[in-house]
Amino acid sequence: MKVVALSGGVGGARLCDGLAAALSPEDLTIIVNTGDDFVHWGLTICPDLDTVMYTLAGLAHPEQGWGLAGETFHALAMVERYGGPAWFRLGDRDLGTHLMRAQALAAGRSLTDVTDALRRALGVGPRLLPMSDAPRPTLIDTPDSTLSFQDWLVGQRGAPRVERVRFTGPPRPAAGVVAAIDAADVVILPPSNPYVSIDPILALDGVRAAVARRPVIAVSPIVGGRAVKGPLAPMIESLAGLPPSPAAIAAHYGALLTAMVIERGDDAPAGVATLATATVMGDRADRARLAREILDLARRLP
Amino acid sequence: MKVVALSGGVGGARLCDGLAAALSPEDLTIIVNTGDDFVHWGLTICPDLDTVMYTLAGLAHPEQGWGLAGETFHALAMVERYGGPAWFRLGDRDLGTHLMRAQALAAGRSLTDVTDALRRALGVGPRLLPMSDAPRPTLIDTPDSTLSFQDWLVGQRGAPRVERVRFTGPPRPAAGVVAAIDAADVVILPPSNPYVSIDPILALDGVRAAVARRPVIAVSPIVGGRAVKGPLAPMIESLAGLPPSPAAIAAHYGALLTAMVIERGDDAPAGVATLATATVMGDRADRARLAREILDLARRLP
Repeated sequence: MKVVALSGGVGGARLCDGLAAALSPEDLTIIVNTGDDFVHWGLTICPDLDTVMYTLAGLAHPEQGWGLAGETFHALAMVERYGGPAWFRLGDRDLGTHLMRAQALAAGRSLTDVTDALRRALGVGPRLLPMSDAPRPTLIDTPDSTLSFQDWLVGQRGAPRVERVRFTGPPRPAAGVVAAIDAADVVILPPSNPYVSIDPILALDGVRAAVARRPVIAVSPIVGGRAVKGPLAPMIESLAGLPPSPAAIAAHYGALLTAMVIERGDDAPAGVATLATATVMGDRADRARLAREILDLARRLP
Repeated sequence: MKVVALSGGVGGARLCDGLAAALSPEDLTIIVNTGDDFVHWGLTICPDLDTVMYTLAGLAHPEQGWGLAGETFHALAMVERYGGPAWFRLGDRDLGTHLMRAQALAAGRSLTDVTDALRRALGVGPRLLPMSDAPRPTLIDTPDSTLSFQDWLVGQRGAPRVERVRFTGPPRPAAGVVAAIDAADVVILPPSNPYVSIDPILALDGVRAAVARRPVIAVSPIVGGRAVKGPLAPMIESLAGLPPSPAAIAAHYGALLTAMVIERGDDAPAGVATLATATVMGDRADRARLAREILDLARRLP
């Protein structure tokens, strides 16, 4: 079975880690949101790509999910001494990634090409595709101002109410994105934030239409009325006018969905096939367990 | 007394640290070789400027003299995992400096301007002037090939015989360099390598002539027939055809010299006023002691 997963950061990365354990590398392609990418300290930072890559390489910080295990922040401390920007905490090991990527991009290589070289060097088997090679920044309209995604999420700790999410830059998917979806037996939408992690991918030219032609299984990022991670719950309230629930997620994806995976005990959304199981992922074995349940569901789809 | 010191890396930095302890900050200007500067990991690296800055800030690695005390190399380890270049060991804290500098240069600020901001942030009182704002790379002709300075010194461990040292790029001193020398009561040439640390400065338009108009005191980098640090001894043999000695240094600087400071017990060069003392610097107190002796000598110059 050929599988494509669309992914944001931590939640998506963990499910993709499970999928990577349950599938042959050549059967899994992960298309990763680049709407959060930004330039910091002169380097192009790709938070979701790196979270997925580090997680699949077994290098991610086990609790926080982003960044590297055992990370240090000595460069950051020096930047602070110089009065430089310290609001985004780039770690020392992580800087190695950003420095390598920045040089390759400066030499004219595409983000797709660089990402492929980096993930191979870290021993990550499945293909990681950035959703786009050109910058495609997500902007957040708040009552007071329009913020870049990282300014909103990290700089302002996701506090300002989100009135609208906008995608800027050319809506061109990276080479291979639509073809990978076309070749997939199933498309999986992991428990990532629909508005700022999955929608940026779906909004690219031809992507939503390609996904709509495939069976699609979404995993609810809302469990027990709360987001498993990150600022999703208030976004559902302000953007959809709904209480946070699997039904709100189902309503958001609408006709795209073939089936949905929700937490056991949560109310199943109406009108879509549902699997209820334990969706909050723990260690790598637990991620693989959830992935296998999702793949079993995919095989049973009509 | 207004003092200008020309400086390379470790030896120069240590004497300048002593001068900084012995003088008011406004009375000392340090003009630093930038011929060793190069671009690595996409960042402009200024080894001598940083060695002087870290040393005067009290942050330098106490034994090796370059780099930072307590430095870690986690970014480097990551770069190595990606198969990136690891022959030049950039530390994590040090990267903070390079990242801040690279961003400022990319924003169009001059190296002089950036250097001033960085040294102030680290609490370094005396003015540090890069010898030039434009790149002015030193090249090393060896029997087999021409190498960039860092390729020769670090990549090849300074082993290939030096047949010629060449300075490339526009020979324009940075703003303020000639004026600082013109305003100095004495110019000090610390125990830096004359060929690759001091000559690059002297070779800039108008610098040698300005230095020649001032009293000049050089400290011999040769002690007991050996270089205190670095690959100077074989360079004297191959470039000057002389055994390494204070006399060879005196011959190299020639008519520029007003007086020379040599290690007690070494043979004094003929034809120049000489002070013999303990010149191999230990801790900061020892550096200040040597600096005071040199300044006393300067006050006694005719």
